Amino acid sequence: MRREWNFSAGPAALPTAVLERARDELLCLDGAHASVIELSHRGQRFGEVAERAEASLRRLLAVPDDYRVLFLQGGATGQFAAVPLNLARRGAAAAYVDTGIWSRKAESEAARYLDVVRIASAAESDYTRAARFDGIAWPADCGYLHVTPNETIGGLETYDLPDDVGDRPVVADFSSTLLSRPIDVARYGVIYAGAQKNIGPAGLVVVIVREDLLDAARADTPTIWNWGEQARQGSMVATPPTFAWYLAGLVFEWLEAQGGLSAMAEINRRKAEKLYHFIDSSEFFHNPIDPSVRSWMNVPFILADAQLDGVFLHHAAEAGLHGLAGHRSVGGMRASLYNAVPEAAVDALIEFMADFEQRHA
Amino acid sequence: MRREWNFSAGPAALPTAVLERARDELLCLDGAHASVIELSHRGQRFGEVAERAEASLRRLLAVPDDYRVLFLQGGATGQFAAVPLNLARRGAAAAYVDTGIWSRKAESEAARYLDVVRIASAAESDYTRAARFDGIAWPADCGYLHVTPNETIGGLETYDLPDDVGDRPVVADFSSTLLSRPIDVARYGVIYAGAQKNIGPAGLVVVIVREDLLDAARADTPTIWNWGEQARQGSMVATPPTFAWYLAGLVFEWLEAQGGLSAMAEINRRKAEKLYHFIDSSEFFHNPIDPSVRSWMNVPFILADAQLDGVFLHHAAEAGLHGLAGHRSVGGMRASLYNAVPEAAVDALIEFMADFEQRHA
Repeated sequence: MRREWNFSAGPAALPTAVLERARDELLCLDGAHASVIELSHRGQRFGEVAERAEASLRRLLAVPDDYRVLFLQGGATGQFAAVPLNLARRGAAAAYVDTGIWSRKAESEAARYLDVVRIASAAESDYTRAARFDGIAWPADCGYLHVTPNETIGGLETYDLPDDVGDRPVVADFSSTLLSRPIDVARYGVIYAGAQKNIGPAGLVVVIVREDLLDAARADTPTIWNWGEQARQGSMVATPPTFAWYLAGLVFEWLEAQGGLSAMAEINRRKAEKLYHFIDSSEFFHNPIDPSVRSWMNVPFILADAQLDGVFLHHAAEAGLHGLAGHRSVGGMRASLYNAVPEAAVDALIEFMADFEQRHA
Repeated sequence: MRREWNFSAGPAALPTAVLERARDELLCLDGAHASVIELSHRGQRFGEVAERAEASLRRLLAVPDDYRVLFLQGGATGQFAAVPLNLARRGAAAAYVDTGIWSRKAESEAARYLDVVRIASAAESDYTRAARFDGIAWPADCGYLHVTPNETIGGLETYDLPDDVGDRPVVADFSSTLLSRPIDVARYGVIYAGAQKNIGPAGLVVVIVREDLLDAARADTPTIWNWGEQARQGSMVATPPTFAWYLAGLVFEWLEAQGGLSAMAEINRRKAEKLYHFIDSSEFFHNPIDPSVRSWMNVPFILADAQLDGVFLHHAAEAGLHGLAGHRSVGGMRASLYNAVPEAAVDALIEFMADFEQRHA
C-alpha cells in the first residue's frame, strides 16, 4: 500500500513529515529509553514534550498571557457538557447561535445543564448564509454566548459576533478551523477544538480559557473537565492522552516550520478558492453556500445526479482520492482541505472531477 | 538511545513487538492508503480494526454474551463520575470498599453525585490486609457496590467480595490488573480499566457492562459517558480515540499469541513471587503488604534508609532500570510488573537491588 490523498473530515490527514518523525522515534524517544507512549506523564522527559507543545501552540495562535491552554480528553462533544458546567450556575441560561448540525449538537448537550436560548439562526437561509444578529433578545441570566465558527458538515464558516455581546464570555467550538488561519484569541473567553482535524490524533481536545473564567465550575462538574482544576494541575488531574499530546506538538512545530498560520492561511485560501471556483464553473457539481461564508476547511458538494454518488466515490478511490463521502446525515460529497492536505491534492481532485463531469454529464 | 527496562506504573511498558508493528505500519495501514491515525472512525477499514480488537479482548477475558464492551475516553477518573451517573438515580446511595488511595479517589468523585457509604475499609491494617466484610451495614437504597481489586499505589490486590452482595451490581476498577490473569467477568456488573497499564496508550478506558445495567443513566449524564448510548452506537457517540483503540487491539493479539491470560498469569506470578521473595529475604528492602494480598502488578518497597532513595534511583537508571520511583503521594519505590515487563527485567532489578544492598547496607 502507499499513501494517497486523504480528504477525510476527521480523523484526517496528518503531515507525512510528522508521521515519519513519529515512526522513527516510536520505539525510543530521544532522551528517553522507551517509547513516548510508555513514559510516565509525571516524568521529566514527558514534561518537556508537553511544555514544548504548549509553547509552540501559544506562538502559533499568539495566545495572550492571561489565557490557559488545557490538553484534555473527551473531544468537543465532552466540552459540549463541560462548557455549561464550568460557566453557568444551575438555573442560568446561555445564548447559542445556530449555524448547523454541530452548533445544534452543542445546544442539545448544554440543554441538560441549563436553559439554552437560540438567539440567532442560519436556518432562514437553509444554512447557506451567516445567522443575522439584528434585534437579538439576550436571556436575562446569560452565562455565555456559544458560537461554531466552522460547521464541518454544512461547510459554513463565519467569525461574525453580535455587536452587543458586552461582557458575556464568547465560547467558540473551533474544532475544524483552529490553526487554519490566524485568529484573535482575545475575542473569545473560551476556545475549544477536537484534535482530529488540524491538531493531531482523535482523543485529545484543546481548550483555551481566559483565566477569569477558570473558577466558576459547578460542584457536579466531573473533575477531569473542571477547567480550573486542570489549569492548576497542568492538565494532569488524571493521566492525559500522552501520545496524542506529543503528536499534536509535532504538528505545531511542523506548522511553525511552514511559516505559521499566516502562511497556512494563504495556502488554505488558495486551495479552497480553487475548488470552489471549479465547482461554480461546473454545471455538474454544486455547493449551495454563499461565497462570503464558505468554509476553507470543509467543502461539501453534490452531483447533478445523486445516482452517480457511488460511481463517483468508487472512481475517486481508484484515482487515489479518499474520504470524499459526505457526512452520513446529509449525503453527497465533502472534501476536507485541512493543513495537511497539500495543494497538489486539490489539483488532483479538480482534475478528477473535471474528467468525471466530462464522462457523466 | 536504546530501549531499557521500564517499571513505570502507567503510562507503562508496551510489548516491543507491538511497538515495532505499529511503527512499521504507522504511515500506511495495510488495506488503507493512510495511517490508522488518519482514518475516519466510520470507515470500513477502521471498523475492521475496532471489531477485531473487541473480539480479541472478548476471547482473552471470556466475556459473556450479555456484556457489552465499550472503548471510551476520560480514563478511569472519568468513570469515577460515570459510574454513579449511569447506575444510581439522584438521591440514591452506593457502597464503596476502601482499599487505598485509588478506591478513595473513586469515592470522592462519586460523592458529587450520590451518598457514598464506606461499608468496609483496609484502614485498620494500614492497608496491608484486605478489608473485612463481617457485619456490613448496607445502605438502604444502594445503587451498586464499588471495589478496587488492585491498588496501583499501595500494592494491595484482592478479589474478595462480601458474601451478601445479593443483586447489587458489583462495579470494579480493574485499571492495573485487567489482563494480568483470568477473571470471572460474570462476578461483576461493570468492569472498567484505564488503558495505560496492561492495555495500551493513555487516553482510552475500556468499560465492560452487563446489558441490564445499560439504560439507567441520569438525564444529566454527559452523552459520551452514557453507557447505553455508547453501546447502541458502537462506542462512536463522538469520535473515539482511534489510535489508542488500534494499539490496544495489537496488545490483545500479542497476549493471545503468548497463550492468553492463563499463560500470562503464570509468568506474572513468577515475576512477582521472585521479587517479593528477594525483598523478604533482604534486610534492606521492605514491603509491608500481607503476602496473601500482595499485588502481582505493582510492588512498592522502601529502603532501610530513605536518604538513599535518590542514590538508588540514580544508579538504577544508570543500570538501565527506569520508572522505579514510588507515587509522589507516598514516596519510596515501586516496581510495576505489567505483562510487557519480561522476567529478564525482574531478574535485572533483583540483581541490581542485591548489589545495591551489599554496597549500602
